[in-house]
Order: sequence, then structure tokens, then C-alpha cells
Amino acid sequence: MALIVQKYGGSSVKDPESLKRVARRIVEEHRRGNQLVVVVSAMGETTDHLVELAHQVSSRPPEREMDMLLSVGERISIALLAMAIHELGDEAISFTGSQVGIITDNHHTEARILEVKGLRIREALNNGKIVIVAGFQGVSINKEITTLGRGGSDTTAIALAAALQADRCEIMKDVDGVFVSEPRLVPDTRLNHEITYDEMIEMANLGAGVLKPESVETARRYNVKVAVGSSFTGEIGTIITDKKHDSAAISGIVGQKDMIYLKLHSTDFSFKNKLNQFLASGKIKVQSYIMQPNSLELVFQERHWKAVKNFLDQSPSNFTLEEEKKVGIIGIIGTGLNFNSRAAFQVFRALENLHITPEMLQVSEFRISWILPEGHLEESISRLHHELIRTQPTDARKVNNFNPIK
Amino acid sequence: MALIVQKYGGSSVKDPESLKRVARRIVEEHRRGNQLVVVVSAMGETTDHLVELAHQVSSRPPEREMDMLLSVGERISIALLAMAIHELGDEAISFTGSQVGIITDNHHTEARILEVKGLRIREALNNGKIVIVAGFQGVSINKEITTLGRGGSDTTAIALAAALQADRCEIMKDVDGVFVSEPRLVPDTRLNHEITYDEMIEMANLGAGVLKPESVETARRYNVKVAVGSSFTGEIGTIITDKKHDSAAISGIVGQKDMIYLKLHSTDFSFKNKLNQFLASGKIKVQSYIMQPNSLELVFQERHWKAVKNFLDQSPSNFTLEEEKKVGIIGIIGTGLNFNSRAAFQVFRALENLHITPEMLQVSEFRISWILPEGHLEESISRLHHELIRTQPTDARKVNNFNPIK
Repeated sequence: MALIVQKYGGSSVKDPESLKRVARRIVEEHRRGNQLVVVVSAMGETTDHLVELAHQVSSRPPEREMDMLLSVGERISIALLAMAIHELGDEAISFTGSQVGIITDNHHTEARILEVKGLRIREALNNGKIVIVAGFQGVSINKEITTLGRGGSDTTAIALAAALQADRCEIMKDVDGVFVSEPRLVPDTRLNHEITYDEMIEMANLGAGVLKPESVETARRYNVKVAVGSSFTGEIGTIITDKKHDSAAISGIVGQKDMIYLKLHSTDFSFKNKLNQFLASGKIKVQSYIMQPNSLELVFQERHWKAVKNFLDQSPSNFTLEEEKKVGIIGIIGTGLNFNSRAAFQVFRALENLHITPEMLQVSEFRISWILPEGHLEESISRLHHELIRTQPTDARKVNNFNPIK
Repeated sequence: MALIVQKYGGSSVKDPESLKRVARRIVEEHRRGNQLVVVVSAMGETTDHLVELAHQVSSRPPEREMDMLLSVGERISIALLAMAIHELGDEAISFTGSQVGIITDNHHTEARILEVKGLRIREALNNGKIVIVAGFQGVSINKEITTLGRGGSDTTAIALAAALQADRCEIMKDVDGVFVSEPRLVPDTRLNHEITYDEMIEMANLGAGVLKPESVETARRYNVKVAVGSSFTGEIGTIITDKKHDSAAISGIVGQKDMIYLKLHSTDFSFKNKLNQFLASGKIKVQSYIMQPNSLELVFQERHWKAVKNFLDQSPSNFTLEEEKKVGIIGIIGTGLNFNSRAAFQVFRALENLHITPEMLQVSEFRISWILPEGHLEESISRLHHELIRTQPTDARKVNNFNPIK
């Protein structure tokens, strides 16, 4: 008997019919003799609808009240899912994040999980029940309702799997698994059957929407075996593990738009060091960064531009702004992509063959990345995929049987 | 500085515009220097919509899950209302029933409040905040989310007012106050400026929708000063107190359809006594009741017919069913309506003048009531109102300035 944590996203439970399909999948798994803890998101566009309501009554809703409001979405799903499972004859019980003791910090709308108690889950499992838990939410050390930010339900599932020492955590999506490139850009892209935590984190950092970096970091920290599969077919497409590949191989070609590139001229190390501290403490997602004795270059998401600008405006005499532009960033993700690897060599050859001239190219353990004009991003991903994956079948992972396009 | 508990119903907060209007009323009251605790229901048809969703996934939703589901409606309202108040520049904080310690029994979907802790409310009031509390819900002694049944938000408000020893509890409605008769039936009906708890309970028992009998019973038990007013104008129409009137006066002419009249022939006292016990324990709302050595007559709501029938089917040899019919019931409500009162005399004279032949007429401290064919109910209320209220201006309460029809 295995203990499995399953997570279903909002599009998997978008209406009563979808909910009933998910209930059938859960009951099937339960009747195979497994214990099941199911984490579920808000139905379809419920969250967006609630946000819209908030903005109709308030120009700047307080974050505490936003959490009070948004946490209801998952409550609706868990109650309905428990009812749908009862209807099929199995026993289910729903719990809010607070009821199962998902304790977070006080950072409303983007809280971090500090601890998972899970006492009531164990009790219910011991009584033979399927346990349904609201994703995306917890209760703070100040006893306030908190939410975990977008993608937070995945984190809930992984944190529960860790706390319960589950045999595995299955993240069920409206895609089949983790693809090398986005199917929208590369229709004949390939599914990764296995991918390491580190690769997955790098892919997520560069915008691969399938999982958030924080979720995968939690999984890595507690060594949770994560699987990503389709809520439609019930099949698992990708397993995320700590197993290193035998040789360097490319598991992702991903990119992100809406980035800001800044180049500052400054010889004032103290100023630059303060900027670094600000970046580190201000939750600014810095994607690329080089500090030189005379300069500092960095790339970050456009949504942080205002905060960065505010910081810079406080010390106008310590630097001059040499360049500011909107860019895209591309990353080739893999394990062991260092300069000695064959995969790295292939990446550089591909850049030459495709006449791509990267700016600010950097090489790290798990990624080779560079910036480029935003408009070239999607085309470049598609061309790189065909150059690197399709022409190098021996280096790539085993081709799987899934139809990558539904 | 007074401490006021205000309650706004679902139609008062049915959309963002209504919510904003309610927020303005609250802020006005707060800026008069009063402390405010506001109880709010789910927006408009939210609850009905959630019930519909439940029935789309389940033919018989478990009651615990129903409570999990339905309790979200009020959470949406409280968060949005707190946001709307912030927008106007005052500080507000929202709490769920569970957060403020509204402790109930374990009877899901129709729980009773056992205790109100209210610690977090006092803290927030001391910090100058307007406190917004979700109506209709609590947390059971088993730590499960419970709901209080229809009209439960009024009970929440009154229970909070009692626990906080509030100066008054204002129930804000989409009507101006408590009318003598339903304005739909009697367009020129009159508002009661004052009414006693007992009269209000009798009126509620006979279907006056403005308040539930349980809410008023709670108010009477803890001597909570309850006021009923319009959420639209912000004016108070009726105050409910324990102040007895100087002389008997009529405060309500109300009626209820969908009642079942039964007459059983039975000389078996043991059987009749068992039936009485069943009626008392089975939450059957008995409106009229006479037991004789050879018979038993009773009137109750049609929705309980199945339960009563099941009970009777267990003892078919102990009685014969003499009569079964669907009826309406009319009640004239007032304090001191005994046979010696002038008001009672007027009622009997009116019956004669109007050629109404009542069946099963009964006289109690606070009401004179009888049954009649269902189809005659509405017309009779209207005719009695004009006979008893309009022709007896000196006995009736002071005519108020409200326009009873909006």
C-alpha cells in the first residue's frame, strides 16, 4: 500500500463534469489499495473572478483581505470534490489549509510554508478516507489566513508529501508532462521522461510554466519523488528525481519575455554592494548578473523595474545609467552543461549555424543562457530545438510514446 | 461611544455597487465615534449557486462538505466589504466565524451557537478597527466548519451583540422594519416602531420573514436591544424590546401557507403521548395542536409531512385518520390578546363583520390564530388589516413617516 499525494490544477476541475472525471481517477487509484491525499486548486477562473470583484470595490485591496477572499476558491473545489467522490461510493473528507496545519510566515499573498502538521490527515487516512486538501493556502503564525502565490497549490502538494513521507507526489496537469520546449512554439517537441530537480528549477526559473521553482526546491530539499502527468488521461509523463544522467543532455530549451537589461557605470563598490543587498532582500528575480570594477549589468523581470528604479533614485550620484532595454532571455537547460561537455559544444555550434549572436551569454552548471531582442525569442527557441534535439537523436533522451500535442 | 453590531443581508450586498453603499453607511456610523462590528451574509444568490454546484456533482451531498462549501459565500462578502471600507479611508478587518470563536454544536447545516469567544474582535476594536464578521457560520466543538441554517446571519449578529454586551444590534434589511402585515398583501400596511420579543417570535413563527424565531429567542434570552432598519436608507424602522405596551395592541397580522391539518381518532393515550414526543424531538414545527380523550388535531408545515407519515405508519392499529388537508394559518399578534382585552374583542367582531368562519381558532398570550382554506389566506389578511388597523386608529401605534412601499 503506497501513500500518494496527488494534485489537480484549476483547469482540471474547471466545471462539474471535470470535477467528476477527477473524482473517478481518484477513486480508481484508491481502489488499487493506495492511500490518497489530494490537493486541489480553485475551479478554472474562480480566482480571476474574485480578483476582479476585489478591484471593483477597492483600488488597492489590503493583502490580508485579499487572502481572506482568494482562499475561498479552493474551499469550493475541495467540498465539491469530496461530494463527487462520496457519490461514487468512496469516503472522502475535505480540509482547509488551516485545518491540516499548513503553517506559513506572515507574508500575505506570497506566504512561505514553515511547517506542516498534518495530524488530521493521518487520522483520516487511518480511517480509510480519501483526504482532500485545499491548495494554495495556509494559516500564519499570527493565525491569519494566508495564500502562497500563483502556483502555490503545487507547493502545498509537495510540502504535504514531504511531511507525510509519501511514496510519491503526482502533479496532474492539463499537459502530459515536462516538455523540452513549449509545445506552442515547437509542436513536435519531446517529453522528458526523467528530469533532475536542478534542471527543473532552472527551467522554471526561465518561465517554464509547468512548475514553480519554489515547489521544486521544496521537493529537492525533502527528497520528494515528484511525477508530472495528465489529469485527462491519468498517465504520468515525467518523473523528477535527483538521479544524475550518465552524460550531459539537454532537457529544456526555454525562454522568457518582458525582461529588463540594465548596465550601470560605477566604480563605487559600496554602492554596488548595497544594490546587491537590495536585490537579494527585495525578492527581485535577477536572471543574469555581472559585476565588474567599473560596471554592473543585470537582467530581471520587468515587473520589478519600479522597485529597482526607486532604489537607484536614492543614490543618483553613485552611478551613471549606460544602457536600459527590454529583452528576452533564452536558456538551454541540462545537467553538466559545462564547457567540457559535448552538449555545451553542440549549443555553441548551433548558435554559429543559426547565426544567432548572443549577448551576455553565461554558462553555469545547469544552463547556458543569453539575452536577445524580445522579438526574436520564440523563433530562436524553435530553431534551436530543431538544431539541437532533432539532429542529435543519440544524445537526447529516449523518445516516448506520448502524443505531445493533444 | 456606543458599541453597535450591524448586520447586512445578502440582498444588501448583492453586487459591488451595493457593497460600496453599505461600506459608506458603516463608515458614516464609525465616524460618529461608535465602535462597529458588522456581520454580513453571502452576496445575493451566491449560496443558491453553490447549492446548485453541489447538486451537479452529488445526488446527496454529505452535510459536512455542504458546510465547507456554503461557508465560503460569507467569506467573499467580508473580504470585499473590508476592502471597500479601506478604500474609504477607515481601517477594517474581516474574520471568519471560526476566527472569532463562534463555537457551535456538531449539527451540520443547522448548527446552534453554544458560545461566542470574540477575543480577536475586542482586540481589533481596541485598535480602532471596524470589525467585519462572516455570518451564518461557526466552528464546532469537533473543530469542523458548521453553518447555522437559513437566517443564521441574524443569529450570528445577535449572539455577537450578546457576547460583546453591545449597546444595540441593528439588523439592516431590504425592508424598512417590521410591518403589521406583509406590504405585498397590504400595500398601505403600517410599520411597528416598537415590538416586544414575544410578539416578534410569534410573528416569525407564523412566517414573517423579517427575522427567524431562533434569532429573536437569543435576543430575548440575553436581553439584546435589536433594531430593524433599511440598508438602503440607513434608517431604523423598528426596535424590538422587552417593554410591554400599556394596553393590548395589534402588532402583526400574518399568515403562512403550505400547512397540513391532521385529525386522528384515537383513545390510546400512550400512542398519542409517543406522537407528542416524536413531534418534540423531531424538530417538527407544530403550529396548532389540540389533544382530546378521543382525538388529536395538529397543524404543521408541509415539509414535515413525510417524517410525520413515517412515524404514523409504524403504529397503524393505534389510530384512524379522520381528516387530512392542506390549509393556511392566520395569526393576529399582539401582547395581552386574552379574552378580556379590547383587541381580542375587536378581532372577534372583525371575524363576524367579514363573515370569516375560522376553524381550530386558538387564543394564547400573544396570538389569536386559526386555520382556513389556503386559497383564502391572502385576501383574509388584507381584509383583516383594513378592518382592524385602519378603522381603529386610536388603538394602533403612532403612524410613522416611512413610506412603507419602496
